[in-house]
Amino acid sequence: MVASNDTPNKGALYLIPTTLGDNEPLEVLPLSVKKIIEETTYFIVENEKTARRFIKKICPKKAQGSLKIETLNKFTDFSLLPSYLDPCLEGENVGIISEAGCPGIADPGADIVAIAHEKGISVIPLVGPSSILLSLMASGFNGQSFAFNGYLPIDNQERAKSIKQLEQLALQKDQTQLFIETPYRNNAMFDSLCKQLQSSTNLCIACDISLANAFIKTAPISYWKKNNPELHKRPCIFIIGK
Amino acid sequence: MVASNDTPNKGALYLIPTTLGDNEPLEVLPLSVKKIIEETTYFIVENEKTARRFIKKICPKKAQGSLKIETLNKFTDFSLLPSYLDPCLEGENVGIISEAGCPGIADPGADIVAIAHEKGISVIPLVGPSSILLSLMASGFNGQSFAFNGYLPIDNQERAKSIKQLEQLALQKDQTQLFIETPYRNNAMFDSLCKQLQSSTNLCIACDISLANAFIKTAPISYWKKNNPELHKRPCIFIIGK
Repeated sequence: MVASNDTPNKGALYLIPTTLGDNEPLEVLPLSVKKIIEETTYFIVENEKTARRFIKKICPKKAQGSLKIETLNKFTDFSLLPSYLDPCLEGENVGIISEAGCPGIADPGADIVAIAHEKGISVIPLVGPSSILLSLMASGFNGQSFAFNGYLPIDNQERAKSIKQLEQLALQKDQTQLFIETPYRNNAMFDSLCKQLQSSTNLCIACDISLANAFIKTAPISYWKKNNPELHKRPCIFIIGK
Repeated sequence: MVASNDTPNKGALYLIPTTLGDNEPLEVLPLSVKKIIEETTYFIVENEKTARRFIKKICPKKAQGSLKIETLNKFTDFSLLPSYLDPCLEGENVGIISEAGCPGIADPGADIVAIAHEKGISVIPLVGPSSILLSLMASGFNGQSFAFNGYLPIDNQERAKSIKQLEQLALQKDQTQLFIETPYRNNAMFDSLCKQLQSSTNLCIACDISLANAFIKTAPISYWKKNNPELHKRPCIFIIGK
């Protein structure tokens, strides 16, 4: 976990995962995350308030007054991003903390990482919970070939078409298909899946991953048509597989 | 991290990640992994010797003599797999440990997980290092849409075609493309990529992820043509992105 040799005098950019919910940080994060946070002063975060709360929870003794925090979210002026990495050019490490899970996977962190590569700054990803990866592991589907598709189209017709395309990819190419939905629309997504997919097609529903009330189940659509899980407002990954 | 409510009397199947190399387990694994191993007697592993070494390293005080270990690899008679989960039906937890990284992602664990779902056994994935996920985070590429493709074809012509197809998906659909190679063929893969991809296409090379000598760099092919990294026999992820 050291900076690579081509940038001996620069600080590194650490990608720091967080918990996916209100559990104890060290239940789902390794000690290296705590150690890097303890040693770091400069942070780039999605939301300062929740990031400070997380830092306090994992490193209660860290002096919060001395932290230098920049915010990166959809309201950020992207022309400012390169300057967020100035501390690295002066030999200081910088940590990106996303709102939940792993930076760069489904959040704005990827833009900062791309700039770091352009500037020759080492990028060091730390281990943490990813609902995408954990649900794929737990699905029992092919993990040698898979795709994460983010959100499906909202328009009903386009959504139906997209679901059928994903089913074809899963069944014909054995490429496991993962996607997500805005949590308050999960039940509507479940209904669309039951309507559009073949009865024999396997669907995994994984929600509240890594939390005490986690629910993960893989079954054919014929099962789901008779067993309606309550998914409303629960963070959820849907997976179609063979 | 408890079994879901529909299987109150059954044990659960825990998916237990391991380190990706010779680092300290708790540097890359959360305490819940240590705790579950401490509490578990029944394991399904790819290689008994390395699994016992890992268990000894993370839980030095655990009595190894009492462990019940089944082996799951390419030599295993698949008709035996359902019986590996018999302890769950009697209320005991079972843990799957893969050779490196996360069970079920690129190893035989997925078959056991599928059987667990059929038997109504809860599947509980634990957090750990995945070279796929860590390299995606560190690439700076689109993490909202990505595909992992496993190994590319070995035949030269088919490989060239496959590389060009992945480039099209990355550039036209902004779907980040990840793939791997047998480590002793990494340098040959690098040469193929430099030959087949356009000069302006971005390639991330991530090797020895999570280890002290990790190397992760994203740059256009024009850069890579002039800077030849030594990848021979180093575990490596290749990523084409936009």
